[in-house]
Amino acid sequence: MKSTEGALTYREAGVDVAAADGFVSFALKRARATNTRGVVLHDLGYSGLFRPESKRGARPLLAATCDGVGTKLLIARELGQYDDLGQDLVAMSVNDLVPVGARPLFFLDYIASGALDRRVLDRILKSIATACRAVGCALLGGETAEMPGLYQGGDFDLAGFAVGMTDERTLPKKSSMRPGDVVLGLPSTGIHSNGLSLARAALLTRGGLSLTRRYAPLDTTLGRELLKPTALYPHPVLKLFSLGEVRAAAHVTGGGIHARAGKLAPRGLGVVLELHRVRRPGIFDLIADVGGVSEAELQRTFNLGLGFLAVVPPATARKALRAGLGFLDVGHVEKRRTSLVVRA
Amino acid sequence: MKSTEGALTYREAGVDVAAADGFVSFALKRARATNTRGVVLHDLGYSGLFRPESKRGARPLLAATCDGVGTKLLIARELGQYDDLGQDLVAMSVNDLVPVGARPLFFLDYIASGALDRRVLDRILKSIATACRAVGCALLGGETAEMPGLYQGGDFDLAGFAVGMTDERTLPKKSSMRPGDVVLGLPSTGIHSNGLSLARAALLTRGGLSLTRRYAPLDTTLGRELLKPTALYPHPVLKLFSLGEVRAAAHVTGGGIHARAGKLAPRGLGVVLELHRVRRPGIFDLIADVGGVSEAELQRTFNLGLGFLAVVPPATARKALRAGLGFLDVGHVEKRRTSLVVRA
Repeated sequence: MKSTEGALTYREAGVDVAAADGFVSFALKRARATNTRGVVLHDLGYSGLFRPESKRGARPLLAATCDGVGTKLLIARELGQYDDLGQDLVAMSVNDLVPVGARPLFFLDYIASGALDRRVLDRILKSIATACRAVGCALLGGETAEMPGLYQGGDFDLAGFAVGMTDERTLPKKSSMRPGDVVLGLPSTGIHSNGLSLARAALLTRGGLSLTRRYAPLDTTLGRELLKPTALYPHPVLKLFSLGEVRAAAHVTGGGIHARAGKLAPRGLGVVLELHRVRRPGIFDLIADVGGVSEAELQRTFNLGLGFLAVVPPATARKALRAGLGFLDVGHVEKRRTSLVVRA
Repeated sequence: MKSTEGALTYREAGVDVAAADGFVSFALKRARATNTRGVVLHDLGYSGLFRPESKRGARPLLAATCDGVGTKLLIARELGQYDDLGQDLVAMSVNDLVPVGARPLFFLDYIASGALDRRVLDRILKSIATACRAVGCALLGGETAEMPGLYQGGDFDLAGFAVGMTDERTLPKKSSMRPGDVVLGLPSTGIHSNGLSLARAALLTRGGLSLTRRYAPLDTTLGRELLKPTALYPHPVLKLFSLGEVRAAAHVTGGGIHARAGKLAPRGLGVVLELHRVRRPGIFDLIADVGGVSEAELQRTFNLGLGFLAVVPPATARKALRAGLGFLDVGHVEKRRTSLVVRA
């Protein structure tokens, strides 16, 4: 697209349509590799098409979620490390589908930047596609927006959107929760994609630590630790739903383990979560030490080693623990006014 | 959330969880007003639930789209005018559903900013909800991300995701297109949400025009003209699908009327689009004059007065034109190698 002398073109205005088209082709190729049998290929443009399937007698419900990766972006950018950011994006959305037992059907991504940096975008998109495949979810579409004037230099933002399908009959029912029910937890890989603003303030601003150095008790550099991708929970959680009734479930994100555990039980019951049964990733101790962050604030912000919680009857808990899905027995339900997170 | 002396909290790190919770309550209230009968209310958190319904014998397909509003944001911000931005966001996504005949079921929004500005967010969300109601689409969820360090000052970004349902039997089939088929068009309200970067470069940077002044041939200030909300096309387009076969359809966005008209016809056929049959909004003449933008570049970037195109058999065209849906007869299909946009 070469412009006539003196005439203004879209490209000169900062939007390179040809480069964008190049990325779109790349993205389509990556997306195609994630196709599941529900995906309906067509040349009509504009939307992705998906054929929902449900068994006879099923009462299908669609579940939809939307999320970003927050300021984890800023760490990735500072280190030029984008290879896992797509997994964070996919995980944040699909992990929000499974608390209602919804199997992820498809995912769409929104990537906005000031100017397309193919090197970066390609790596992010590759990572999105890999994560989609890992959870059996089709990358059905997306939008790449070039917005000179809003995003500066190498700045960009990501948002993800996932749709899943569950069955009305298998939705968790908090009202059936009983004292003695078991709280199962799935370990987190570290900080995941929540609380990065506090982590950055504590470690970088206040502590003056360097992303490229190692600090005890981390087993890698601070930057690599913070960029460990968010765990993908659909497989173990959907398997748990297939083993028996799930009374309630939580993806541990904003508000931290405190808020997420606190919302699990219905009025009159409370969860006792025994955090000492879980290995706490060293990054949280480092944040506490360096930033002077209290245990209470840690609990209100971070997952502290547990990225997913589910309340199930004891029999289902036994089956799940035997099935080797990665679940840990991390607490129980009892008659109490508020939930309690125990660390001792 | 008051912090202990010396201890770092999430709030001091720039994220105000309590304020965010306040906005979430407001958003939930607005969303509730958009509920349609498919929405399944629940207290399980994490995802929005929707019960898809289809008639006996239907072959339902889900359609999904994702889009933003581009740098229209920057104009809105400069003028402090956010009341229509939500309609732009909803329109960009739901207008992308209807080319395959998909009825919008639900919408989710992603709003990211450096720091929550309730005054701005409330207006945007109100506008999103109003637009959702206008097209019968439930606002099923969304994410409000506070990302200090990525978005500066009052900067923010918006992304939208929509899911609709269509029927495999009514999908447009380009292969059934015939010479003599009619191209119907729906008028745009102006620039919509595409090509704003070129418009800004032409009018503001190169032309030095002021957003708060009036310039011939505009009937309002330049700022108000640029912020006119994108038309919502679901109602007339879905009605068109109910009147007869649709061979192809296009939401006129990136690539402009030239690219969108160009992709309508299958190999061996071409569309002749007679732009002179449509009133061209004055903003496009102003951009051409002030920015020295060629007619070809205008056609490759803007809708030039036609926001939606559909190719239908003559009989369906007659029905649609009689039905008073707002469609104009803007061209026809003939045997030719490439499509042609005629302005004469």
